[in-house]
Amino acid sequence: MAGMNKQVLLASRPQGWVKESDFNIVDTPMPVTKQGEILIKNLFLSLDPYMRGRMNDAKSYSAPVPIGGVMGGEAVGEVVESKNPAFKPGDTVTAYTGWQQYGVSDGTRVRKVDPKLVPPSAYLGVVGMPGVTAWVGLLDIGQPKAGETVVVAAASGAVGGVVGQLAKMKGARAIGIAGGKAKCDYVVKELGFDACVDHRMPDFYDQLSAVTPKGIDVYFENVGGPILDAVLRRVNAFARIPLCGLISQYNATEPYGVKNISSLLVNRVTLRGFIVSDHLDRWPTALAELGTAVARGKIKYREHVTQGLENAPKAFIGLLKGENFGKQVVKLT
Amino acid sequence: MAGMNKQVLLASRPQGWVKESDFNIVDTPMPVTKQGEILIKNLFLSLDPYMRGRMNDAKSYSAPVPIGGVMGGEAVGEVVESKNPAFKPGDTVTAYTGWQQYGVSDGTRVRKVDPKLVPPSAYLGVVGMPGVTAWVGLLDIGQPKAGETVVVAAASGAVGGVVGQLAKMKGARAIGIAGGKAKCDYVVKELGFDACVDHRMPDFYDQLSAVTPKGIDVYFENVGGPILDAVLRRVNAFARIPLCGLISQYNATEPYGVKNISSLLVNRVTLRGFIVSDHLDRWPTALAELGTAVARGKIKYREHVTQGLENAPKAFIGLLKGENFGKQVVKLT
Repeated sequence: MAGMNKQVLLASRPQGWVKESDFNIVDTPMPVTKQGEILIKNLFLSLDPYMRGRMNDAKSYSAPVPIGGVMGGEAVGEVVESKNPAFKPGDTVTAYTGWQQYGVSDGTRVRKVDPKLVPPSAYLGVVGMPGVTAWVGLLDIGQPKAGETVVVAAASGAVGGVVGQLAKMKGARAIGIAGGKAKCDYVVKELGFDACVDHRMPDFYDQLSAVTPKGIDVYFENVGGPILDAVLRRVNAFARIPLCGLISQYNATEPYGVKNISSLLVNRVTLRGFIVSDHLDRWPTALAELGTAVARGKIKYREHVTQGLENAPKAFIGLLKGENFGKQVVKLT
Repeated sequence: MAGMNKQVLLASRPQGWVKESDFNIVDTPMPVTKQGEILIKNLFLSLDPYMRGRMNDAKSYSAPVPIGGVMGGEAVGEVVESKNPAFKPGDTVTAYTGWQQYGVSDGTRVRKVDPKLVPPSAYLGVVGMPGVTAWVGLLDIGQPKAGETVVVAAASGAVGGVVGQLAKMKGARAIGIAGGKAKCDYVVKELGFDACVDHRMPDFYDQLSAVTPKGIDVYFENVGGPILDAVLRRVNAFARIPLCGLISQYNATEPYGVKNISSLLVNRVTLRGFIVSDHLDRWPTALAELGTAVARGKIKYREHVTQGLENAPKAFIGLLKGENFGKQVVKLT
């Protein structure tokens, strides 16, 4: 519909698994900019697991999306109108405009990006929030040393893929955990991990043991549940566990009880929950390094592109189920 | 028996709860010293929860006690014979001589102590390993700031009592968790904690909430199990959890599954397992500070004294069940 702005609203708070009926797709009038603001036409919307938490009304690190509100999130787009001297029409920017075709911003947390260095959508992934998440979590918290063994869950995902490649750059051994043979093959053959174990296999623990003969020094956690318990049986003394996500638990109505807590004591493990927005001081360095590495082909990535904003709810549910393969984005144009 | 040395040996590896029959008490000939060694007549034996782990044949941070071997542990005693120039008869020392009346040492990890500053048995507790454990765990890992809320489990125990008093010295609010009204009363009235909650009460979580209205910034963990889950519901953003012990789990045949792991992520918590012997560089400072504070009455402590080495197994089982009240020692003379 010309001159209208399609939006995805939160219709209801999910109990357990998210359903498409928890969203409402509406056409609204184009937003109007005030002095100091810019109008952005979004090209790609980012879908990320953390968004599941925003759908709840629970205490969390960021405010929940209100019922009837536009689903929050980051998008990359083009400035089509500017009443802010810092931006001009034609600029490519990332901004937290949410699940909609057009967004207005006063410039807060808007990042100008170079669409010639890497494709615009990459600024939502490998050279964006997920990439910086991998960088901060692995390098600042995980602190892998050459020769150590780094294991990362959800290894074919937007964060996990970068974690393993950064680990290799540091001289560590990189082991992925992923769901299914295709993802495992990709992680090893395309991203250059040393090995990848399919957590769906009944002998998952034995396979994990086989590829971590010297134990695990860094475990980058994105998943939680039984996978965490399995890894805890393999951690070495003084292991580090950057806790980035627990996607296996986000839709669980009854949380999994982690049994091998004693391993954290016996092995003097440091487990640290982190959220990349607490580390804004590290973003410029991380983004510069990641942008260069991606442009030079030293860090590879894969995107799972869904066409059309109206398909964002379905794509998001697929992401939570691990049906995506690589960074999940929605192409809006 | 004159000229004999009574010892407590490990007779069998316990499955689940320790039984008295897992130990064997024997009289053996007095040990003979070689050049460079000293003979120590033990005055007090320390009993500590970590010893439960040594009874297992599992991978741990220290080697298991062999079946038929003397149970390991620290004692404070008097040098009665010395072929080592660093020691002379009459010196009061602590040493890892184990559960026996007399021990021989080459001086490794033997510490000369001043029985006039504090009573000898205190060097096994508040001015010894448990005190340093509290000091390192709280100050180096927990890092409480003035005005923050520190919660410590097993608050009336050898470690917990020191944790709370150190927290108060740092200007933090100190909240204990203990088993039973008598221990809670002691923690508040004698040790000066701000409050103490009895974990045996059916409304334990509500009581914990009531005394932590601003949440929990540091949780010094000695216990694990459901208490950990309850505390995880109350932790603040950027809370620190020094993980010192998990006494509720040491005799469990089926470990408790910790459900509130997501709180570690949402609140960006740092949980760090530690063992005081990894921090030998901190012992001199810690012991000096603790010794001074105890001598001046600024840190108080209580001992649970069991008479006679033959009663050590029963006392140890009582310690694991929380039947002791204060630092558990065995008086050997």
